[in-house]
Amino acid sequence: MSNTLGKRFTVTSFGESHGHLVGVVVDGCPAGLALIESDIQPELARRKSGKPASTTRLEDDRAQILSGTHNGYTTGAPLTMVVWNKDIDSSPYGQAPTIPRPGHADYSAYIKFGGFADHRGGGRFSGRITAGFVMAGAVAKKLLSLSGIEIIAHTAELGGIESRAASMDEILSSRKNELCCADMQALPKMLEALQEARQAGDSLGGIIEAIAIGVPTGLGEPVFDNLDGDMSKALFAIPAVKGVEFGAGFSVARLKGSQNNDPFLPVQGGVACSSNNAGGINGGISNGMPITVRAAIKPTPSIGIVQDSVKLDSLEPVKLGVKGRHDTCIVPRAVVVVEAMVAITLADFALRANFIPGVIK
Amino acid sequence: MSNTLGKRFTVTSFGESHGHLVGVVVDGCPAGLALIESDIQPELARRKSGKPASTTRLEDDRAQILSGTHNGYTTGAPLTMVVWNKDIDSSPYGQAPTIPRPGHADYSAYIKFGGFADHRGGGRFSGRITAGFVMAGAVAKKLLSLSGIEIIAHTAELGGIESRAASMDEILSSRKNELCCADMQALPKMLEALQEARQAGDSLGGIIEAIAIGVPTGLGEPVFDNLDGDMSKALFAIPAVKGVEFGAGFSVARLKGSQNNDPFLPVQGGVACSSNNAGGINGGISNGMPITVRAAIKPTPSIGIVQDSVKLDSLEPVKLGVKGRHDTCIVPRAVVVVEAMVAITLADFALRANFIPGVIK
Amino acid sequence: MSNTLGKRFTVTSFGESHGHLVGVVVDGCPAGLALIESDIQPELARRKSGKPASTTRLEDDRAQILSGTHNGYTTGAPLTMVVWNKDIDSSPYGQAPTIPRPGHADYSAYIKFGGFADHRGGGRFSGRITAGFVMAGAVAKKLLSLSGIEIIAHTAELGGIESRAASMDEILSSRKNELCCADMQALPKMLEALQEARQAGDSLGGIIEAIAIGVPTGLGEPVFDNLDGDMSKALFAIPAVKGVEFGAGFSVARLKGSQNNDPFLPVQGGVACSSNNAGGINGGISNGMPITVRAAIKPTPSIGIVQDSVKLDSLEPVKLGVKGRHDTCIVPRAVVVVEAMVAITLADFALRANFIPGVIK
Amino acid sequence: MSNTLGKRFTVTSFGESHGHLVGVVVDGCPAGLALIESDIQPELARRKSGKPASTTRLEDDRAQILSGTHNGYTTGAPLTMVVWNKDIDSSPYGQAPTIPRPGHADYSAYIKFGGFADHRGGGRFSGRITAGFVMAGAVAKKLLSLSGIEIIAHTAELGGIESRAASMDEILSSRKNELCCADMQALPKMLEALQEARQAGDSLGGIIEAIAIGVPTGLGEPVFDNLDGDMSKALFAIPAVKGVEFGAGFSVARLKGSQNNDPFLPVQGGVACSSNNAGGINGGISNGMPITVRAAIKPTPSIGIVQDSVKLDSLEPVKLGVKGRHDTCIVPRAVVVVEAMVAITLADFALRANFIPGVIK
Repeated sequence: MSNTLGKRFTVTSFGESHGHLVGVVVDGCPAGLALIESDIQPELARRKSGKPASTTRLEDDRAQILSGTHNGYTTGAPLTMVVWNKDIDSSPYGQAPTIPRPGHADYSAYIKFGGFADHRGGGRFSGRITAGFVMAGAVAKKLLSLSGIEIIAHTAELGGIESRAASMDEILSSRKNELCCADMQALPKMLEALQEARQAGDSLGGIIEAIAIGVPTGLGEPVFDNLDGDMSKALFAIPAVKGVEFGAGFSVARLKGSQNNDPFLPVQGGVACSSNNAGGINGGISNGMPITVRAAIKPTPSIGIVQDSVKLDSLEPVKLGVKGRHDTCIVPRAVVVVEAMVAITLADFALRANFIPGVIK
Repeated sequence: MSNTLGKRFTVTSFGESHGHLVGVVVDGCPAGLALIESDIQPELARRKSGKPASTTRLEDDRAQILSGTHNGYTTGAPLTMVVWNKDIDSSPYGQAPTIPRPGHADYSAYIKFGGFADHRGGGRFSGRITAGFVMAGAVAKKLLSLSGIEIIAHTAELGGIESRAASMDEILSSRKNELCCADMQALPKMLEALQEARQAGDSLGGIIEAIAIGVPTGLGEPVFDNLDGDMSKALFAIPAVKGVEFGAGFSVARLKGSQNNDPFLPVQGGVACSSNNAGGINGGISNGMPITVRAAIKPTPSIGIVQDSVKLDSLEPVKLGVKGRHDTCIVPRAVVVVEAMVAITLADFALRANFIPGVIK
Repeated sequence: MSNTLGKRFTVTSFGESHGHLVGVVVDGCPAGLALIESDIQPELARRKSGKPASTTRLEDDRAQILSGTHNGYTTGAPLTMVVWNKDIDSSPYGQAPTIPRPGHADYSAYIKFGGFADHRGGGRFSGRITAGFVMAGAVAKKLLSLSGIEIIAHTAELGGIESRAASMDEILSSRKNELCCADMQALPKMLEALQEARQAGDSLGGIIEAIAIGVPTGLGEPVFDNLDGDMSKALFAIPAVKGVEFGAGFSVARLKGSQNNDPFLPVQGGVACSSNNAGGINGGISNGMPITVRAAIKPTPSIGIVQDSVKLDSLEPVKLGVKGRHDTCIVPRAVVVVEAMVAITLADFALRANFIPGVIK
Repeated sequence: MSNTLGKRFTVTSFGESHGHLVGVVVDGCPAGLALIESDIQPELARRKSGKPASTTRLEDDRAQILSGTHNGYTTGAPLTMVVWNKDIDSSPYGQAPTIPRPGHADYSAYIKFGGFADHRGGGRFSGRITAGFVMAGAVAKKLLSLSGIEIIAHTAELGGIESRAASMDEILSSRKNELCCADMQALPKMLEALQEARQAGDSLGGIIEAIAIGVPTGLGEPVFDNLDGDMSKALFAIPAVKGVEFGAGFSVARLKGSQNNDPFLPVQGGVACSSNNAGGINGGISNGMPITVRAAIKPTPSIGIVQDSVKLDSLEPVKLGVKGRHDTCIVPRAVVVVEAMVAITLADFALRANFIPGVIK
């Protein structure tokens, strides 16, 4: 079940970049959730192409719910949601997989699947697969929202330019621009960096930060099904993620315990922390503070600049400039995907903890 | 099954810090592996206390195999391996869990388990649980070694001091010192930092890097059971890990595609990369290069310095200095634990890919 | 993941009787299997309506492969296979689920899903869901066939009339008649019983027996993932199955050990049994003899004869005659479904045991 | 994870008949359940030897809880429960596994595990493994009992002699005699049959029926994780079970729909059925009626009567009379094991449906 994620709110992914469709089966969504295509479409729109950094492939992605709802409500049966592939141009992929593209899964997949993998447009390894994640995420978000949990992600860094935004208001404002950047000073610099990279036939990476608020204390399971462990696994399913950190993350390495520990203090009938270096998670279990998580996104591997590769049949060296239509930087489009993976994970654990009921009334 | 990790080589963890024992059931280990306690003991010894940074709790941990072997070979039945708890001093834990220790899981666990969790010594959240991981890791390593896969981890950073070691020879030498540091220049500085922190009643964090060599191309499953995703999940099971990155990790955010992509080149009948920013993983699948992964370890939350907390019964603020016997920095002891989690993950995927046979002959 | 079966060859079911479609995602099928729709269509045809005992709903079911193949071969990616619903007449279902039909899941589902379940045509509980099982079974059979494993099921009993067929030749001949009956003496009696029941507005049950030959010794896992345990679970997924037995089955209760034990004897370089009361399974693991399994199929619960039920809103008693188009006996159509569930189980275990390779060459 | 059963209340089995111990790890038991050894011991006592039909191996089995409780309550951590092996006599097993015993798993295991399986006393295939099941079942029963669910099993048939008992009072009385027989007329005949078989060096089979009352409507998941499917799988984990049926079971094959359907009728604020041919399960989901399930138990394969076997090394035929200490019929001792498997399954589904809370208060 390598294409299924989760235990209670499970997402099974299927489809290929240049096949008929991409989609998901979501199993475990409670009955009684009002759900129609227009609940999903806006999320898909957030990952669509047409952004400054994105491919010219014009994906007019329309979410279609094929099963699991009746009269506009979920039934408790598996939700099948798909996006049909339309604007496919497989012509540039004729040469692959005989010459693996550096930074892509071509070579690994070629060996693993004995040459049978569908390599067109990256096949199963394409970022297009994440359209399915986003649809599942839309369902998860709607479920979580009913229980007061909201998730927002934004571009924390792009092409080496950091967003210095910190307040929740700023971060919410990131949805208003196409780079999902919450720092108005950084925004033009990011746009400029993208422009430069595109002209050079190169690509850029970045960091996406997600924040989940309203998460109750007690989500996450010791010792292996940690909230951080499972969220991390979900995030690594996004092609291009090379690192995941929570709260203070890698900077904990340079903190003392007295600096890093989040002191507890009493708040209106409960307990909170006066800092959030833990990113809302202690011992793998949510502690009631906002969950904060950051994912490192590598630069798009498909670049026009010529690179070294190898002909797989003759094992001769070869120079390769990747053709096709590609994103200069996927960070802006991946923001909604990061939100989706965080939401899917939280929905799974909220259901495990009975924080979301089995039937929505 | 929140206490079970993996699909083919599965590890079920049980036990508490101050209960009878800690242990694991390893299910899925092939029959025919020569295995006796002395195969496991040296690994346990590597995580034992007595190191410069460690607790004064004297754990004379002896691995005991309770099931799954016969005549010195694994039988294909579940391997049960335990360490009995002996030098237990639960007296300092009397007050908890009424006052949660900052940085610990006390509060999260108190809410989640309704006050029933065994809080003594951290209970299920104690680093002591990792003794079980190490025993499972010892089995995984022996299995992998038969197939030519070797894993080594070392202290890449401690208390803000980086190890600059880079060559495999240097890294192998890290096993010779108690801090597992491969950089002889950094070693004395790390020792000094530890000494200072201990005297101040404070604690330190760091980064552990693991390298796996001999990993064949093709381990890992798209799209969710990625090698990186599952390894990350395994590493987050170590208490104190706050971030995980592969290859160039978070630095990919500042690289261009032309810098980050690892070019392919032909090598003696096969294909390799001339750099390893991917950390040996493309698209979630190993590409034949060494797997490199880094885990951020937070400073030990138990510190003598007084911190703010809350009385859970009255919700009054309270000052807390954590008593008990604690490590100033767990990094040196956690090195073997990181190796174990990497090994467990690789064994799981090597079995899934039939790279390790069902019966060892 | 209540809609997913298996560990290595997993089947995720989706769809409803009167929704857009029914289908499956098969995850874990090795790459390199030649597979096109015409490999699946004949199996679907075997379960189609139009048989003597069947509904007048005219299902011109066409299998469609939506993902997982490329150039006529499986790629190792999830196989999505669907049948679109066409000849839907939901009019008779207007009154439900307010009045549960005896013998159906209406009442259980109403309570479980809070009234949100799609009740039209039984929704998720419809026998129509098994069209998906049959498509997955077609893939499993093709995989198994490459390794020399063949499965055949037949009508062992229908309406109280037993098939006395015993030889493999006879049983193979069952595919030639629409009742899948291997006993030419019993066949006309079965047809007569069906005719009578239909005229009376009643329905009939029966027993289906499946035989798998060519199964190697060693499939099945102790102690929980038994070959019999998992096959039994797979068979109970067929609506209407009320009992499952292997080999001598329930008759073992009246046998002595000396009668029931299957003696071993040497055969051409190996070992076989001179009887097969075990149905090819000892200790949950195949022993090299044919797997024989029988499933008890209850009479179709939808009958025209008036029955007692209850109005769910007012809790008043009510008389109910079930309208709609129904099978008098589903046994003949379920024969291929039983084969499918046996095949799916065997494919799962054959992959676990590496008896089927990860890539077909 | 072939040695782990369940999804929410999971049981991981370990240990061997002639090794150190047999035991289980139960993961998913809610925190706050009062649990000490004496809650478990009486259940173990019910499966102990010393009954008329049983082995002379004297197992003074004492349950020991090694983890998961604190101050007499479950903590939410994994429960490890073991029975240490004491009265071991491995001498008769010297010759095995070179000569497989008919009716046993010796041959299957020999092939599967390449000769490395621990064959002494059947190793992992021994009925002794069920001591672990019984301990897990004791926990499950206590959990269920708090929610008003009670389970009782009895000997429905032994050596061809049927128990005609039908009333709940009679069935409850079965606990008073060592054969667990509810029919006082049948009891002496069963004892006589056992006596005869024992003298002849032969063995007997039978049928065990279990009834669960108080089960709410709505346990069980469509379409694969059926209550019947998973209960069946759990029961097939008992060595010797060759068939499982619910309600009318195999007799449905000879019933008409009008006979087999259970009419609904209104009862004090709810709905019930006026018959229970469905055994309390419709569409895989409980319908509020008692769950009734029957398991066919084969005669003990170990018999003194000489049987045909094969020398595995030379493939020569050989005569074998099984020595060692064996049960003439395991039915009376297996009654509590059947109860355990039913309880484990129901606890799993009751937790999935939130019918049992995550913390017991």
